[in-house]
Amino acid sequence: MFDRVFVNATGADGQSLNLAIRDGHFISLATERPETGRAEVVDLQGHLVLPGFVDGHIHLDKSFLGDRWRPHRVAATLRERLADEKAALASAAPIAQRADALIRQVASFGTMAMRSHVDVDATTGLTHLHAVMEAREKWRGLMDIELVAFPQAGVVSCPGTADLLDAAAREGADVVGGIDPTTLDGDADGQLDIVFGIAQKRGVKIDIHLHEAGAQGIEQLHRIAARTRAAGLEGRVSVSHAYALGDVSADEVARIADALAAAGVSIMTNAPGDRAFPPILQLRAAGVRVFSGNDNIQDAWWPYGNGDMLQRAMLLGYRSGFYTDEELLVALDMATEAGAAVIGKRDYGLKVGNEASFVVVKAPNAAAAVAAAPAGRVIVRRGQFWGDAPRMQFEPPEAVPAASGLHG
Amino acid sequence: MFDRVFVNATGADGQSLNLAIRDGHFISLATERPETGRAEVVDLQGHLVLPGFVDGHIHLDKSFLGDRWRPHRVAATLRERLADEKAALASAAPIAQRADALIRQVASFGTMAMRSHVDVDATTGLTHLHAVMEAREKWRGLMDIELVAFPQAGVVSCPGTADLLDAAAREGADVVGGIDPTTLDGDADGQLDIVFGIAQKRGVKIDIHLHEAGAQGIEQLHRIAARTRAAGLEGRVSVSHAYALGDVSADEVARIADALAAAGVSIMTNAPGDRAFPPILQLRAAGVRVFSGNDNIQDAWWPYGNGDMLQRAMLLGYRSGFYTDEELLVALDMATEAGAAVIGKRDYGLKVGNEASFVVVKAPNAAAAVAAAPAGRVIVRRGQFWGDAPRMQFEPPEAVPAASGLHG
Repeated sequence: MFDRVFVNATGADGQSLNLAIRDGHFISLATERPETGRAEVVDLQGHLVLPGFVDGHIHLDKSFLGDRWRPHRVAATLRERLADEKAALASAAPIAQRADALIRQVASFGTMAMRSHVDVDATTGLTHLHAVMEAREKWRGLMDIELVAFPQAGVVSCPGTADLLDAAAREGADVVGGIDPTTLDGDADGQLDIVFGIAQKRGVKIDIHLHEAGAQGIEQLHRIAARTRAAGLEGRVSVSHAYALGDVSADEVARIADALAAAGVSIMTNAPGDRAFPPILQLRAAGVRVFSGNDNIQDAWWPYGNGDMLQRAMLLGYRSGFYTDEELLVALDMATEAGAAVIGKRDYGLKVGNEASFVVVKAPNAAAAVAAAPAGRVIVRRGQFWGDAPRMQFEPPEAVPAASGLHG
Repeated sequence: MFDRVFVNATGADGQSLNLAIRDGHFISLATERPETGRAEVVDLQGHLVLPGFVDGHIHLDKSFLGDRWRPHRVAATLRERLADEKAALASAAPIAQRADALIRQVASFGTMAMRSHVDVDATTGLTHLHAVMEAREKWRGLMDIELVAFPQAGVVSCPGTADLLDAAAREGADVVGGIDPTTLDGDADGQLDIVFGIAQKRGVKIDIHLHEAGAQGIEQLHRIAARTRAAGLEGRVSVSHAYALGDVSADEVARIADALAAAGVSIMTNAPGDRAFPPILQLRAAGVRVFSGNDNIQDAWWPYGNGDMLQRAMLLGYRSGFYTDEELLVALDMATEAGAAVIGKRDYGLKVGNEASFVVVKAPNAAAAVAAAPAGRVIVRRGQFWGDAPRMQFEPPEAVPAASGLHG
């Protein structure tokens, strides 16, 4: 038997759904309302339930959210941007405080797991990592946080970083990062030797930021795929952004997609607004896992982002020309299941036996939820509401004739 | 003296703002809190106030909002899409009902004026126009609605449409529309003769949908600019979409921008997700008025859109690479002042003497509001709240350690 049942919900396909729960886990999900007996009954009023969102790429140490507004500053070079960012973060509120504010905000949208990159370089050392680990500890049980030791300033070109990445992997980072091995470090094999070496030595995963464009970027992806197979790290390596995949012909994408699929290298895109990005459907058709994340949120890099992965799914579709329900569900998969698989989140999703955690949204089905990305959410974790008493009043004010309906 | 004062607000620039109101109009806007005397005092709790949004391009007769979800259907040709749309709308809820639902939703986001295109063709006649006029009447006083008689199926190529456009202008349409004179009608001069003829005869404005690409589209813009000057219609002609401006070189844009500016032809873009669109800053720098609207909202053309013009401003910036505060404010201008000027909305904006209508948002300044597009809104019309008792609780739930904070 179950001790609680959420009735009158709507499932992803738009059909009726009733979710029975015992000890914080699903024991049935059915279109028919079960005999409720002595179980507590909660009416979801016909609203849609979605699995918790997974943000596959976020920077918890960078956002100014929870601090004052800082107008974006134009930087002429990458090095100028990095210096500007360091100066801005030095005068901002402590990282643990800002990370906490950001986690709080994304949790309120229904995100339940994330992969956060955290800057590691010769001047910051492991200070960012330790601060974000503090925030992670505070949110344990409500937010699964996988941490990437991210060499924002380069690896080979930033002396000392290699040792720091190794130390980070020893002290709590789950993933070792890399960044533009050729254009930033000028030594692709040098950087990849270090990154893959740490992954093998420490048993951590790999996630490499790759902004390199065109043929150069494609060559780098082939190199990463080959090293992944050589190291036996299939399924444990991701490349974030991989803009080059949006720059080249479909034939070239087909070749590298086969190599990525064979090596189990996954691709992360946030669907940037004003530049080309990977062709999602082609990669998926070739067997490549493609997932998503918000990336920068109101930080020194850009002013956009609210942390909502349902809005991110909308943006993925908006930018990719996804119109059909099937395509809209691809965008949702990238914000949920695909990211969960990359992070290795267990007990995840709307299936019997899994943790009874889900997001309640006003929408007739999951495709519609992606298209409109309604902002109102009610969050359920292990069968219980998170936050204030749930308000399932998602309706705008009643229509009113003329100027009545105004009041003091 | 004033009878009501909203204190402790934040203005677009992030400075303190206090808004004193008498008889529904602003009588002062000041950083200092005025002596309130016997006036009623409303505390805006430090939240930002923005002018009401203006949706410069919406289709009130097309959206399925307020009806059931209809999965997007792939159409091979424009004619197939038009046939598919007619079939879908024929089985949908009545237009007046759907238009009412859409107006209600956009009003709840803070839109206070709009230009709605309404299909006029040989089979629909003026039925859509009459239905939308019914919805317009219902919302009079809360939503200023300018109506465009829109020949979706063509003018020359759809016999009878010319007379219907003329009848529409006589019966209540404020603007006569056109569409792709060359590619849809195959007779640019034929269509423009009719459209400009009706505008001159009936004293209505012009708004032409122009999807024509590249050099052909630019040629059409030159033709429209020349006709506008010849007809003495400077300031009364708009071109919607004008995708061609995103297809050609900066030099070519510079030439046509000068012609558009000289003719007072304004350009509407909604910043589409997966195709090129007009370069906003270059056009504005040349003196062209550029405004925005949501365009299609969950209709037969595409599944996206929620009607929120603040989110649309975010998308304009996201797609255009607007990062600085100054650029973000351009996007906001396109969703407010620029559209108000096109529609000719009087008594508009946060200035002494104007109608005391505004939107309350949680953001530190207007640029930040565009970047994050927070969904929570409180709407004030002529000094009074619209809708339910205002909830200025925009905060997500408190951060909570571990799994406490969950409750039944």
